[in-house]
Amino acid sequence: MSLLSMFNLLNVFIRHVSKQNVLGKLQYSSQVLPQFSSEKFNKTRKEFSLVELKDIDYFKKILDKNRVLTEESDVLPFNIDWFKNCRGQSKVVLKPKSAQEVSQILSYCNQRKIAVCPQGGNTGVVGGGVPMFDEVILNLSLMNQIISLDDISGTLVCEAGCILENLDNYVREHELIMPLDLGAKGTCHIGGNVSTNAGGIRLLRYGNLHGSILGVEAVKADGTIVNCLKTLKKDNTGYHLKHLFIGSEGTLGVVTKVAIHCPVKPKSVTVGLFGLHNFENILKLYRSAKSSLGEILSAFEMCDRDALNSSSKYLKQSLPISEYPFYVLVETHGSNETHDEEKLTQFLSKEMESGLVLDGTVTSEPGKMQNIWSFRESIPAADLAGAYLHTYDVSLPQNCYYEIVPLLRERLGNKARVSGFGHIGDGNIHIDVIVPEYSTEVTNLIEPFLFEEVAKRNGSVSAEHGLGCRKPHLIHYSVDETAVQLMRDLKNVMDPNGILNPYKVLPDDGV
Amino acid sequence: MSLLSMFNLLNVFIRHVSKQNVLGKLQYSSQVLPQFSSEKFNKTRKEFSLVELKDIDYFKKILDKNRVLTEESDVLPFNIDWFKNCRGQSKVVLKPKSAQEVSQILSYCNQRKIAVCPQGGNTGVVGGGVPMFDEVILNLSLMNQIISLDDISGTLVCEAGCILENLDNYVREHELIMPLDLGAKGTCHIGGNVSTNAGGIRLLRYGNLHGSILGVEAVKADGTIVNCLKTLKKDNTGYHLKHLFIGSEGTLGVVTKVAIHCPVKPKSVTVGLFGLHNFENILKLYRSAKSSLGEILSAFEMCDRDALNSSSKYLKQSLPISEYPFYVLVETHGSNETHDEEKLTQFLSKEMESGLVLDGTVTSEPGKMQNIWSFRESIPAADLAGAYLHTYDVSLPQNCYYEIVPLLRERLGNKARVSGFGHIGDGNIHIDVIVPEYSTEVTNLIEPFLFEEVAKRNGSVSAEHGLGCRKPHLIHYSVDETAVQLMRDLKNVMDPNGILNPYKVLPDDGV
Repeated sequence: MSLLSMFNLLNVFIRHVSKQNVLGKLQYSSQVLPQFSSEKFNKTRKEFSLVELKDIDYFKKILDKNRVLTEESDVLPFNIDWFKNCRGQSKVVLKPKSAQEVSQILSYCNQRKIAVCPQGGNTGVVGGGVPMFDEVILNLSLMNQIISLDDISGTLVCEAGCILENLDNYVREHELIMPLDLGAKGTCHIGGNVSTNAGGIRLLRYGNLHGSILGVEAVKADGTIVNCLKTLKKDNTGYHLKHLFIGSEGTLGVVTKVAIHCPVKPKSVTVGLFGLHNFENILKLYRSAKSSLGEILSAFEMCDRDALNSSSKYLKQSLPISEYPFYVLVETHGSNETHDEEKLTQFLSKEMESGLVLDGTVTSEPGKMQNIWSFRESIPAADLAGAYLHTYDVSLPQNCYYEIVPLLRERLGNKARVSGFGHIGDGNIHIDVIVPEYSTEVTNLIEPFLFEEVAKRNGSVSAEHGLGCRKPHLIHYSVDETAVQLMRDLKNVMDPNGILNPYKVLPDDGV
Repeated sequence: MSLLSMFNLLNVFIRHVSKQNVLGKLQYSSQVLPQFSSEKFNKTRKEFSLVELKDIDYFKKILDKNRVLTEESDVLPFNIDWFKNCRGQSKVVLKPKSAQEVSQILSYCNQRKIAVCPQGGNTGVVGGGVPMFDEVILNLSLMNQIISLDDISGTLVCEAGCILENLDNYVREHELIMPLDLGAKGTCHIGGNVSTNAGGIRLLRYGNLHGSILGVEAVKADGTIVNCLKTLKKDNTGYHLKHLFIGSEGTLGVVTKVAIHCPVKPKSVTVGLFGLHNFENILKLYRSAKSSLGEILSAFEMCDRDALNSSSKYLKQSLPISEYPFYVLVETHGSNETHDEEKLTQFLSKEMESGLVLDGTVTSEPGKMQNIWSFRESIPAADLAGAYLHTYDVSLPQNCYYEIVPLLRERLGNKARVSGFGHIGDGNIHIDVIVPEYSTEVTNLIEPFLFEEVAKRNGSVSAEHGLGCRKPHLIHYSVDETAVQLMRDLKNVMDPNGILNPYKVLPDDGV
């Protein structure tokens, strides 16, 4: 979510690619093509079989011809990720329409030891959805059917390739909402959301996907269709297998169907922006908001002055309140407008009196709410504009949430600008380090220092974006070796040939 | 939770046992001793090693002598479950005080191929916490330390043997509550709650344990301590291992520490009891409550006339409203008493006008609220009193939630009384079949008919109580063979010698 505006920034490019792809005429100019991931990350190809003509013929037997893409120009957009950070060298994209087709493809690839890269909306930011080498790309975009909606229980069942925003629009017609909301919602797939355990801004209110996913259908590397597509909130019959597929980034199985619990659509939404003196006061305000706003609190975001100034300049708009060292954005979702406004107004007047809030504004007008959100959401794009941006997505216990920002500022001095912003309610901070241009000196000052500081505080080096192909080597900063070993054991038992999304999530043996 | 009053009924017995056990003088009379589980369930002992004197000596080296119980009278209470339905034949109870001690014990038992039965508060209802044969009982009651509470984020970290009610009392001092509430809370352990994925009455509001458990520390069968004890809400660094230990009933590992997210303590609680004409109206009322009460709805329970009449007679108290075919109990948890009462009163007057609610009462007086809850909670005890009770804990999609009750009534005619009640919000119904005394004819009319009807509707044959040793043979009514096979694969990779809680959860091969 924090990367919403990065997505917006890249939208023109991406939409262009998608449109051209439909027409089948895209030619990338060599200037815009990113470096091959295998070179960038210095990877050696594992001993998978090469895709041969006989394999293509087999795929064409299973799928219609037009669902097996082999033309270089057709395949290219599927080899490159949103951020143009990763580029694979796949020769073939397969577009199955059913779990049975996915099963046939995987069963065949497993026997032939052909590696496969499952792909959803391709909006991931750690390169998990594009191949490293020549893995077959298994793109699920044609598995986009809504199967059922029980509007009493709020249970939606759909195929993995459904776009999150389409699902949200659909369930809103039935007075429900999707329990997650991301900047990439117009493009990302629900199957990808599940596979990456996507977070987003309203996790604070509606919980994480391990809580709201009721069931999944997934296909294992050997083609076995594992049916855990229950729609029940309580079901204690054996091991809770669905969680193996939530957040394992397509390395343990390909999610093909999803059952998800949708909360009731709020009847009233309110947004407030507050200025504060220091970070300690943000924590006090958070505690007070949890108590006073309680059940209607749906987002509690923070930004420091650096972050919001950058965004304000980028948007060429003044903030609706004066300048302060820290800002907090509070949002409420409730069922009664009068009650909600009363709660938020009382909260604000109480905390202005207490001195925690120095200045603030509250609104329930859609345009004004969007305006306040835009300051928060434009921070990454603002930091990226005309500079080189190091951006880190980490989780930290709330009592040391902001500690690394001043440490980095001290360490980098006038070599870089450092800002911090994020989802306080979830302990998820985004740290941006902005330099005029890339410099090894600055990079070496940040890394591994930042990861070590996160590890010291029992934080996570990847809060909501996963490990993909860009971060497996960082896993030891957040995960014990015993846990990594258990992950390897699970991978071995579920995908003994290692064909599913290789080079991702787990570090190479011995690393 | 539904069995609260059964627990109450048995409390005198259990307290007696516990007290006597402390004194080390308990002698069960032969009349009260339940049949051996191995005979009752017709099980054959697997080829585990017998515990020998040298093993006891080793255990005494690891633990203090007084934490290795071998006297028959000392061991007996740990061999019998709350319901006196199951009885094991263990010769030794071990009471470790740390994960390191658990690790040493398991590592030794794994090498010696000695089977182990992990045990929490021993309040389970499917016999998962007592041995089938002579498994060593690993009782975690001495691992009862609270490690930390971050009252800003609401994160509690504690050892597995902490009693749920003690934790709730502790966090309430810090304006928080535990996210789960069970009838057995005065005795059950948080480690047992996690291991059985305990549900309870407020799952509707605060979600399930897969959502609220932030981290666990668990010991694998080979003694490896797997540290996933993160306190973060967002952490996407590799596979989400903690979910392997949530709900696997101690067969994949022994949970030794837990980090859990505690919601804010509600400032206002309200309870309403409503009479309704038919089940369809209950579903309509549920939908209306979700919309009108929205974020403050914390429980939505239903009972049919049979169920509540039985409870009313048992309590020798009249219901606070007239007699109706169906009843609904609604509870709210909120942060503002005025707002909450207004919402509930408006909801009630609207639905009385619409005709959905025929009669109703709303209260926020603690005594009156408890009185209304007692009618709901006393149903199981009332059905058990002076009769033989078949009780079933199943989940069904809400649109067919009540269908099996009339089917059973038709099938059983005047041979039995059938009642239905439960947590509508969670799709979890408890079906009681009451007969004057046990009869094979009635049992054969109910089973497997009821399980088949649950399976037809994609329901679950165990909603919140797990499979333990009593239900593994029912797993196929709710779980596909492909999923069962994957469960076996996981068991094999995590506990290749099968020493952890054998005879539980998974059916014997070939069943």
